[in-house]
Amino acid sequence: MIIHLDLPQNGYDIILERGALGHAGELLDLDRRVLIVTDDGVPEQYARAVAAQCKACKVVTVPTGEGSKTFPVFEMLCRTLLEGGFTRTDCVVAVGGGVVGDLAGFAAAAFMRGIDFYNIPTTVLSQVDSSIGGKVAINLDHVKNIIGAFHQPKRVLIDPEVLKTLPARQISNGLAEAVKMSLTSDAELFALFESGDVMQKLDTVIERSLRIKKSVVEQDEKETGLRRILNYGHTLGHGVEAFAHEHGLYHGECVALGMIPMCASDVRARLLKVLDSLHLPTAIPGDIEPMLAAVAHDKKCAGSDVSVIYVPAIGHFEIKKLPLSEWQNDIRSAMQG
Amino acid sequence: MIIHLDLPQNGYDIILERGALGHAGELLDLDRRVLIVTDDGVPEQYARAVAAQCKACKVVTVPTGEGSKTFPVFEMLCRTLLEGGFTRTDCVVAVGGGVVGDLAGFAAAAFMRGIDFYNIPTTVLSQVDSSIGGKVAINLDHVKNIIGAFHQPKRVLIDPEVLKTLPARQISNGLAEAVKMSLTSDAELFALFESGDVMQKLDTVIERSLRIKKSVVEQDEKETGLRRILNYGHTLGHGVEAFAHEHGLYHGECVALGMIPMCASDVRARLLKVLDSLHLPTAIPGDIEPMLAAVAHDKKCAGSDVSVIYVPAIGHFEIKKLPLSEWQNDIRSAMQG
Repeated sequence: MIIHLDLPQNGYDIILERGALGHAGELLDLDRRVLIVTDDGVPEQYARAVAAQCKACKVVTVPTGEGSKTFPVFEMLCRTLLEGGFTRTDCVVAVGGGVVGDLAGFAAAAFMRGIDFYNIPTTVLSQVDSSIGGKVAINLDHVKNIIGAFHQPKRVLIDPEVLKTLPARQISNGLAEAVKMSLTSDAELFALFESGDVMQKLDTVIERSLRIKKSVVEQDEKETGLRRILNYGHTLGHGVEAFAHEHGLYHGECVALGMIPMCASDVRARLLKVLDSLHLPTAIPGDIEPMLAAVAHDKKCAGSDVSVIYVPAIGHFEIKKLPLSEWQNDIRSAMQG
Repeated sequence: MIIHLDLPQNGYDIILERGALGHAGELLDLDRRVLIVTDDGVPEQYARAVAAQCKACKVVTVPTGEGSKTFPVFEMLCRTLLEGGFTRTDCVVAVGGGVVGDLAGFAAAAFMRGIDFYNIPTTVLSQVDSSIGGKVAINLDHVKNIIGAFHQPKRVLIDPEVLKTLPARQISNGLAEAVKMSLTSDAELFALFESGDVMQKLDTVIERSLRIKKSVVEQDEKETGLRRILNYGHTLGHGVEAFAHEHGLYHGECVALGMIPMCASDVRARLLKVLDSLHLPTAIPGDIEPMLAAVAHDKKCAGSDVSVIYVPAIGHFEIKKLPLSEWQNDIRSAMQG
């Protein structure tokens, strides 16, 4: 199935197809210099399968995790392109999750002011969300995605077969982002989560999530308005994530927690059941106060108000601007009440 | 005078006005966090004049020269923005020549995936050429401008008054780029150079150069075709520049040399007189062979052909693709004949 993302200047196809990886060479133009970026948490057969279909390629494997989204690793990728004699007509391919996509995408965006970039996401999280939309970035001093670009991929290849090698917890981690999108934009997708047979209908979950993301990005490519709904659950989520080293939660798990307080109470009751069925967390681990303080610190520069997405009914959203202190009180009562 | 650069998404005004610096606060939106980037070769009163018109600003002064267009300096600017609590609605202002514009512009392009950027060029070279068009970049391993972005400024402020403090050689260095544009695109501007009273008509030279640059950028923002004419004289020029540390030539002086062989013989005769009158060099210093070899090394990845701009008559150009060896022979006979 081909889902076309329609943009004024850089529209592209998202190819959702079981087994696509095995004939990537027919779906992507690999008949040129190709830099494949992957990480050591991705089964190496995936990058190898793509490499086998390239005329001339170089594979760089970075350490798994956010720790690779740094200036030194970014500079290393740029130097690899330079020393490999890459020109404006060559390309970069990401084979991995969100970290690899963000990092490789930013190298492709910056090298010679932008060369072609293909994304082959291999996690649920990147397949349903982060591989689409052109946001690429690295971190600086533990602030996530603060240095980057909007650089749309030339094509995205989504092969659900690769998810077979993912641990169950990683699958749930990615599904949290799909739940997020269903809450603001797609009551039918949420109903599918409630039905309980998500794993049998994974391709449908991916497709419906992609269609939501497509629609949002088409309306607001540079995130000046509507695209913020994709940050649903992320304000508190980032606060929880700031303490991830202590409690060991993944990104999607933090987002799951972040969604809970920001919806009407009947929505919350249904959401909690869905999160439970996906083995996603429903209670903040440890003290919530330092997490709220971390959000306040993040937001301090934007003034004392915070913009948050609120879900009054499944498939609907409101953007609310409220004083930070009021938002903190809402969270406290929802999570501790 | 306002010259509007018309682009599909990010058009902007270029303000050409003597004394503009003194009321920059009326011409630019400085009522927010402002990072001013300048270098220690720029008279500090210029950055100070802009700073005095900001509500909250921070001034960073980098060492003058290409040596500042590096990853460490770029990262330092990003960190300055981060630690200064800059948000998407804040801005970066470059006060200086091409190096400062490239560096500050790339920081503005990458921070939070792009914040507002104002350019206040203070050299002839940056006023007639590099401040316009949105090409921003840093160098990597001595390869110029290899890592960067297209990030159009929000507004460009050109105040010819600031050129008063420039040494004569720096003025000629910048005028070489104006001569370049006149050769491919504006016979009247070239005639002005031939008339000999350039210094009395500097504002006209700047304005006509800006209009050429505007027209080229409007037709080819991302440099996929026409914009290459701005590289006239730069192929050999870069070869000469690779040895700049030995012979001490400036960028514009290298471009001046690079133009000489790439035009018809009657054009060349007139060009040599103009270069002479501007005290720009007309003979390659030292052995030309290592310079030709440097170009060959730069171009090796793009295959054995080289694309060059040729001027058959003043105000006209042709794009020629020819084998590198043939191009080298043309250069040898033109420069040594």
